[in-house]
Amino acid sequence: MDLKTLYTPVTRDLADVEANFKALADFWKREFPELHDMLRHILVGGKILRPALTFMSGRCIDSNIGRILNMATANELMHIATLVHDDAIDRADTRRGRVTVNKLWGTEKAILLGDFLFARAGEFAASTDNLRVTKLFSQTLGIIAVGELRQARDLFSPNQNMEGYLQRISGKTAALLKMSAESGAVLAGGTEAQIQTLANYGYNLGLAFQIVDDILDYIGTEKELGKPVGSDLRQGTVTLPALLLIQRYPDANPVSEFLAGHDREQNIAKAIEQIKRDGLIEESYQEAVKYSEKAIGLLAGLPESPCREGLRELAVYLVRRRN
Amino acid sequence: MDLKTLYTPVTRDLADVEANFKALADFWKREFPELHDMLRHILVGGKILRPALTFMSGRCIDSNIGRILNMATANELMHIATLVHDDAIDRADTRRGRVTVNKLWGTEKAILLGDFLFARAGEFAASTDNLRVTKLFSQTLGIIAVGELRQARDLFSPNQNMEGYLQRISGKTAALLKMSAESGAVLAGGTEAQIQTLANYGYNLGLAFQIVDDILDYIGTEKELGKPVGSDLRQGTVTLPALLLIQRYPDANPVSEFLAGHDREQNIAKAIEQIKRDGLIEESYQEAVKYSEKAIGLLAGLPESPCREGLRELAVYLVRRRN
Repeated sequence: MDLKTLYTPVTRDLADVEANFKALADFWKREFPELHDMLRHILVGGKILRPALTFMSGRCIDSNIGRILNMATANELMHIATLVHDDAIDRADTRRGRVTVNKLWGTEKAILLGDFLFARAGEFAASTDNLRVTKLFSQTLGIIAVGELRQARDLFSPNQNMEGYLQRISGKTAALLKMSAESGAVLAGGTEAQIQTLANYGYNLGLAFQIVDDILDYIGTEKELGKPVGSDLRQGTVTLPALLLIQRYPDANPVSEFLAGHDREQNIAKAIEQIKRDGLIEESYQEAVKYSEKAIGLLAGLPESPCREGLRELAVYLVRRRN
Repeated sequence: MDLKTLYTPVTRDLADVEANFKALADFWKREFPELHDMLRHILVGGKILRPALTFMSGRCIDSNIGRILNMATANELMHIATLVHDDAIDRADTRRGRVTVNKLWGTEKAILLGDFLFARAGEFAASTDNLRVTKLFSQTLGIIAVGELRQARDLFSPNQNMEGYLQRISGKTAALLKMSAESGAVLAGGTEAQIQTLANYGYNLGLAFQIVDDILDYIGTEKELGKPVGSDLRQGTVTLPALLLIQRYPDANPVSEFLAGHDREQNIAKAIEQIKRDGLIEESYQEAVKYSEKAIGLLAGLPESPCREGLRELAVYLVRRRN
């Protein structure tokens, strides 16, 4: 099963999101060609997971939904805006094999393009004429920013623990997947119970998704990842596999050595090797599966539909994926 | 007349905005002390012009207004967020004599703090439960971002003209002053005509305000400005005084020479001197006064009140100010 097949119940909806993106870029074609080029560059590709989640959640509740399109667009735009700022912050040259905005147009314009995308995302959210999702939008952006600030604070910190890790990934990833599912349910007119169920589904899916992302950073090849293996640790971010290594050998381990600045290249290589040898990849996967299964369990509370099945398959897919 | 006196009709309202800011920072005191410190650092001082404008516009229409506080807070937070990003982009060390966030905590955290402030601003806007001002909020943020992107595009460009200048300052400054006045009028329940009048007032006030800012960059002392005289041109931004010099001597002038990269230090000094000698400061002021008077003229369409008088005085003050 691939993502495209998984998205079948909402294929047309996702084409509408793409049309929104195209119109957003084309608006500037004559008046501001550079902005047009930046938008064309950034508004393509990706998993479009957030709009898919918004539509599938909505269609779980009501198969005939009209107002969800703009919220789905808002959710993806917010995601893209955070990526643009992340890459500017990390001074990344590529993302998924494509050159970043900051590399092509400079950090300054990347910051401003991100701000522009937040603004357009907010406009799309407000254009649903639904105050609840509009408020949720700004709350979620705040949670994401705090999550990223926590990550920046914890870079190279010797004090790493599970609570801090979960807090960071809740903020930087799970909050937006929660909003994506929750806003679909709200706009489809779900009951409060249905809305909470789908919000929780999205949140747990988000935790599983980010844990797998963090695992792939250790087990992917440089070609698959589009960046060196172990990039997170290299940049000072301790994710689940490295955290488990610290917990297993609290007195001496290559991750803590690396964080303390000792023989960095050597300790990175040692950490990657030891994480794999000690079965910490499998242990990390168990954690991801735990959240994925929790997400799937929640779906039992919703009526049967192709979209509910789609959400179940999505939760299975996202822990099995290789990129 | 100073700003404090001018703000008399809304002194209490502005204290409420400050209380909102304090609560916003204090929320993080225990859980995230670094964020608390950043917020305490950034949420002080300034002209608090935008909240004052929001309240005065609202009270022009209805002296008994309740829901404006959160919008006034949103307007100032958006302003502060853009300053945080601007300083990160310009790698500025100080702003109004205070050390910048990027200098104290680094560019990365400054970008994220700006994002956080945009988010909180959006939440405050949405908490008015008024979709019109919530939409206006995101639209305005988009306009500001495009204005800043245009400014970044036009840096050191040899093609400078009045239309481009007005377009840039409309975006980066006038749009937010327009929203500040407009949102106050909307939330006070103004008629459509009153809302448009105050929106136009804010817009023209914003143009006058920015032109004066641009003039002060040439005539202030380094101490008053908290940065070297002629900083805008130094960074490649051509504002009204420099633009008028280009227009007066289209064939050869020190601004164009500077932009072309010839003898930069010498041409900056020449440009500043020639701008003053040729009366281009006075000519720039005439332009500011034109917009200020247009703003004042619009007020005739509103009922007499202490706040209408305040708005009139504000438009006079903002072209006379020295900082």
